[in-house]
Amino acid sequence: MRIVIALGGNALLSPKSNATFKEQKQAIEKTANLLAEIAKKHEIIITHGNGPQIGEIYEQQKASKIKKTLDVCGAESQGQIGYMLQQALKNEFIKKGLNKKISTIISQIQVMSSDSAFQNPTKPIGRFYSVMENMLLKKEEYMKYFKGKGYRKVVPSPKPVKILELNEIELLLEKNFVVICCGGGGIPVIRKNKQFKGVEAVIDKDRTASLLARNIGADMLAILTDVDAVYLNYKKANEKRISEISERNLQEYFIRGYFEAGSMKPKIEAAIDFVSKTKKPAVIAHLSNIKDAVNQKNCTVVLP
Amino acid sequence: MRIVIALGGNALLSPKSNATFKEQKQAIEKTANLLAEIAKKHEIIITHGNGPQIGEIYEQQKASKIKKTLDVCGAESQGQIGYMLQQALKNEFIKKGLNKKISTIISQIQVMSSDSAFQNPTKPIGRFYSVMENMLLKKEEYMKYFKGKGYRKVVPSPKPVKILELNEIELLLEKNFVVICCGGGGIPVIRKNKQFKGVEAVIDKDRTASLLARNIGADMLAILTDVDAVYLNYKKANEKRISEISERNLQEYFIRGYFEAGSMKPKIEAAIDFVSKTKKPAVIAHLSNIKDAVNQKNCTVVLP
Repeated sequence: MRIVIALGGNALLSPKSNATFKEQKQAIEKTANLLAEIAKKHEIIITHGNGPQIGEIYEQQKASKIKKTLDVCGAESQGQIGYMLQQALKNEFIKKGLNKKISTIISQIQVMSSDSAFQNPTKPIGRFYSVMENMLLKKEEYMKYFKGKGYRKVVPSPKPVKILELNEIELLLEKNFVVICCGGGGIPVIRKNKQFKGVEAVIDKDRTASLLARNIGADMLAILTDVDAVYLNYKKANEKRISEISERNLQEYFIRGYFEAGSMKPKIEAAIDFVSKTKKPAVIAHLSNIKDAVNQKNCTVVLP
Repeated sequence: MRIVIALGGNALLSPKSNATFKEQKQAIEKTANLLAEIAKKHEIIITHGNGPQIGEIYEQQKASKIKKTLDVCGAESQGQIGYMLQQALKNEFIKKGLNKKISTIISQIQVMSSDSAFQNPTKPIGRFYSVMENMLLKKEEYMKYFKGKGYRKVVPSPKPVKILELNEIELLLEKNFVVICCGGGGIPVIRKNKQFKGVEAVIDKDRTASLLARNIGADMLAILTDVDAVYLNYKKANEKRISEISERNLQEYFIRGYFEAGSMKPKIEAAIDFVSKTKKPAVIAHLSNIKDAVNQKNCTVVLP
């Protein structure tokens, strides 16, 4: 099977909130061990989030005299995470005697300048600012107040339309490479007067994972996170775990507003998008259950 | 011809010392315009320095609570510069109606842990620190005093031994891609107990350019900088410009200590290394003269 694996933040970060970089590296090594097991039997393409990393890079450049735009911060996060993942995976392949090569492709994703997201920024980036700090900030940025937590920079999250580096991704896949690409949802660029240009935005990584999986003809989209399945009424008395569901029924729940909050919504949207357009399965699973998940066990399986 | 182009700092940065990021982007666009002209007729592979960029990333992380190692800073700089170059080149290709694809490969370069450079750090990184600042620094880092300028972190610059991602670079070249790779001399890694591990070092980009050019069977190594040629007794009364020289004669000058100071030394070493081992020419030229330089004019040509 050709499987697109979308790694969430927990695959790349230590669960400790004050984790050192070394501990984060260890988290990536643990993830690489799990992924290498899958690569034994399947063709895998890895994409990943970058929320904490781009936030960190953004905050760091803000404190510096050379200001970078958000697309450039995203490109740096692709370099950082791609390198760490590719090295950790290579080491696991060597340990397991797997003759597989692995490569990271710096990936730009075209978005539309007409996307309504540009009028309605929703994606928080970087740290929280107190009410006082926010007052002192230059009003160049769109800051949103989060109740009880403070202000945070919020940026547009436009829909991914086209992966500019699709050719090289396909080429490397054909040659038996494991490819790491479209990190952090991809570097967002618009096309204007036949020229590409980076924009101050962040693309949702699950949306991009679905686009990628469709474009390269994946047999499965595996979305890995820190919850073991999709739940209805999550963490409520009437909580219900979904082991298997048709794309249509999931869409029904989605429309009825079951997945309002948290990070599950984009994952469900991505699964529905992939399954409805390809008639192939998507799974949403806990990272540590990935081996079961590719066999459609111990997770939520979304079927055509 | 298959040409490896090694871009120096001036290709990626504005000449202004206080240049904004936007001005730096414009410098890259200007470079991309020059490179696209060469890509019309030749197969080009681009590698680049990262001195100012990795210094900036290093200083930024230092001021932040999450400390990163220097290999990771290097990976980020490959993402940053690779993205900006690949976008600018793509735009130039579109303008010129060239049907070429371009891709950035995150590149690790193996170095030897036994390299004497690890006992003798020489490569300065980041900003200067005053004598007072240096006293207040934790003594985790090796700082060197530069007369009249202050203290600066100095790191090992080991010899590049093996490009780990050579396969994918070759694969993309075969398919008519322009490849950006081994940025900043590559991310330095050592192999220990059959596992790869990043190290706190920086590899000289000209040395890596020569290794790359040899490995991929380049017909020419073009080292671009901000001087129009190699000079004997540079900026002295008896200054002599070298238009054409045999690798042997250049080596003779080299051994006799003609190229002691400044940034020309590693360029000359790289040119000698490439020409002596491949019997193909290397050129050292001003970036803006690149079109002439590939025709062995208006530069220093090093011949077998």
